[in-house]
Amino acid sequence: MSDLMERRRELLGPNVSTFYEEPVHIVRGDGVWLWDKDGRRYLDCYNNVAHVGHCNPRVVDALCAQARTLNTHTRYLHEGILDYVERLTATFDDPLSTAIMTCTGSEANDIALRMAEAMTGKRGIIATDATYHGNTTLVSHLSRSNVPAVGFGLGAYLRHVEAPDSYRIDDPDGNRFAALVARAVEDLQASGIGVAALIVCPIFLNEGFPAQAEGWLRPAAEVVHKAGGLLICDEVQAGFGRCGSHFWGHQKQGVVPDIVTMGKPMGNGHPVAGVVTTPDIMARFRTSSRYFNTFGGNPVSCAAAMAVLDELQEKDLQAKALAIGAMAHERLSALADTYEVIGDVRQTGMVFGAEFVTDRETKQPASDYADRVVNAMRNRGILLSKLGRHKNTLKIRPPMPFGAEHLDLLIETLDDVMSQTPLVAR
Amino acid sequence: MSDLMERRRELLGPNVSTFYEEPVHIVRGDGVWLWDKDGRRYLDCYNNVAHVGHCNPRVVDALCAQARTLNTHTRYLHEGILDYVERLTATFDDPLSTAIMTCTGSEANDIALRMAEAMTGKRGIIATDATYHGNTTLVSHLSRSNVPAVGFGLGAYLRHVEAPDSYRIDDPDGNRFAALVARAVEDLQASGIGVAALIVCPIFLNEGFPAQAEGWLRPAAEVVHKAGGLLICDEVQAGFGRCGSHFWGHQKQGVVPDIVTMGKPMGNGHPVAGVVTTPDIMARFRTSSRYFNTFGGNPVSCAAAMAVLDELQEKDLQAKALAIGAMAHERLSALADTYEVIGDVRQTGMVFGAEFVTDRETKQPASDYADRVVNAMRNRGILLSKLGRHKNTLKIRPPMPFGAEHLDLLIETLDDVMSQTPLVAR
Repeated sequence: MSDLMERRRELLGPNVSTFYEEPVHIVRGDGVWLWDKDGRRYLDCYNNVAHVGHCNPRVVDALCAQARTLNTHTRYLHEGILDYVERLTATFDDPLSTAIMTCTGSEANDIALRMAEAMTGKRGIIATDATYHGNTTLVSHLSRSNVPAVGFGLGAYLRHVEAPDSYRIDDPDGNRFAALVARAVEDLQASGIGVAALIVCPIFLNEGFPAQAEGWLRPAAEVVHKAGGLLICDEVQAGFGRCGSHFWGHQKQGVVPDIVTMGKPMGNGHPVAGVVTTPDIMARFRTSSRYFNTFGGNPVSCAAAMAVLDELQEKDLQAKALAIGAMAHERLSALADTYEVIGDVRQTGMVFGAEFVTDRETKQPASDYADRVVNAMRNRGILLSKLGRHKNTLKIRPPMPFGAEHLDLLIETLDDVMSQTPLVAR
Repeated sequence: MSDLMERRRELLGPNVSTFYEEPVHIVRGDGVWLWDKDGRRYLDCYNNVAHVGHCNPRVVDALCAQARTLNTHTRYLHEGILDYVERLTATFDDPLSTAIMTCTGSEANDIALRMAEAMTGKRGIIATDATYHGNTTLVSHLSRSNVPAVGFGLGAYLRHVEAPDSYRIDDPDGNRFAALVARAVEDLQASGIGVAALIVCPIFLNEGFPAQAEGWLRPAAEVVHKAGGLLICDEVQAGFGRCGSHFWGHQKQGVVPDIVTMGKPMGNGHPVAGVVTTPDIMARFRTSSRYFNTFGGNPVSCAAAMAVLDELQEKDLQAKALAIGAMAHERLSALADTYEVIGDVRQTGMVFGAEFVTDRETKQPASDYADRVVNAMRNRGILLSKLGRHKNTLKIRPPMPFGAEHLDLLIETLDDVMSQTPLVAR
């Protein structure tokens, strides 16, 4: 493994991220399971890209059948992209009925921001201070944790607002968040930049998936719309049924965004992503630039993406996410009765985790403890991670076929690991 | 078909480009052949993405085998990306030895421009006025033919220089082009922006693949380097053996770029692309931002890309491109003896075409004639296109397995079509 790490440094350069103190060398996947090169099995509690399970046979079969038949660009006519976009947009509320297909969520968000500029004539973008929306020059500026030292000065157009945090910040109905957004709007207007859009993950997953009442995002959406800006919901993590109660996270939030972006789980690992918007916004974008994406919407990508929708529907995975998610919340809450270090348990469909604190009164983040638990879990064969502003919340976001038996193994192992992990490292 | 066009407008929005007056509805591909929904066969003289042939069995088999085994991101260790990057970088001259893998050429160029900014501390980018390098907010500004009405003001950092044109502009050794680049450098320096990079397709394919002596790009490269800027070669079209004499277009030009980008043919249609650069530039980029690409370099993409390299090598396709390209030049030159409208014949490996003019003395572009020939060829079952500043040059850029028998069919059909196409539309 140190050999592989050395080859990575040499061939890929320094500072290329890996997971865990001792990175895992994965060679095989099946459903919710991954195997390393020594044949050791890991329960995957992390990877949302393999949405309908690693190497899902339906998706792989669709991919292979189409790859053997035809793979070309959309300047020729093909029913694949039309059938897929028709089925995809049918899952949205009016007037979200048109789409551009891309290869990555980054490309999708890059388009969404340009659409907002095209529609409003303004360039100011508002995002939270604990988010991530992708890696293009423009989109990378949305991540404050990754403020690029380079980036053609685009940081000037960004305003970051404090991320929601249901554990530490009292904001039951989203009015406080809306007020922060309003302040950013005023700042952008005062500086002459003006407001193009607020972009958020509708379940604020990277921010720590705070507990929020339905409709929590409405006040912020109203603020932005009143200022002439657009609401962009980045469903890269929240979408395709993961949030359980709804197919899209923004539906749970009771808002109809102007633009929705999606990616990671869309093709179960195949590089396919997209932007869904209204006919008006699409027409404005399409006439203000001649966007074309060579690989975007090719027949193979559409076949894989369509198979994901089939699998979700036939296996009823959204309902499963709702049920398993609720069980996970219960099981984690029961652990909180045993372990003082669990300050909060949060869950939205098939995304769940516990926030670790050194003291329940002060809510001091136990970030180092979280780190040790994550690494210990890896050593016990359970793959998960941590997130949030303080990186002290377990990030458990498994493939959707994750079932009750897998939850048992996760919770039992977590219980065991926590019982052996001291709050302060020895 | 009008039904499909209507569905496209409704689902994808207006202004979504298609090829030909009567778009083709393609349903199957094999080697250099494509079939439409009525079973009609077309000879593909256009698609460089299907580099080793449509639905190449070796590539499809590799793709499917890996998709059935594992598809995940690079935060786990995997030999696929290391083996591929090792083999890829071995095709480059020193010190080009490190790579980032992305999903699209657009993402690759977006990174390349940021690398140039990171390395130079400047933002000025120089490109030709008839090029295309991709579709991100930043990269889309490189295309003057597609000046975005929107784009966060990034146009301020671009300077476009007149594209080379061996038919109309006398510049045998590239000194004239270098002087244009020098003027752009001065302008960027005078404006306080400074020079980050010159980015070019090393064979200037979109510009009309002008005839150039080996080493033609050297003077321009020297100008940029002297000014402290970098040379970025976009090998999305020129690379992977297409230019025949060399594996990469820049090698034919006698330069070692600081950064090389690649895409389209890399995975034979699978969305995989990349950036190759020196360890110094990579380290600077990697430490100035935390770039991560979820799908980039995944095991399936690497397996497809590796199979493309295997196929190129075992079928000796670069040598074939050299031989067939030379034959194509001869055959097109013979047609020029018959047809006055052919003002110039140009070819670089497996890229060839004829430039149409209404008058060989004035060299007045016969753009409308080119358009009618392209559409007539499509109706005769031959797919090709046109390009260049005046869109009057046939763009013939077939999959690499294109052989002598295919060239026969192409030339015979072209002869026949031209004999029936009047210079002025009736």
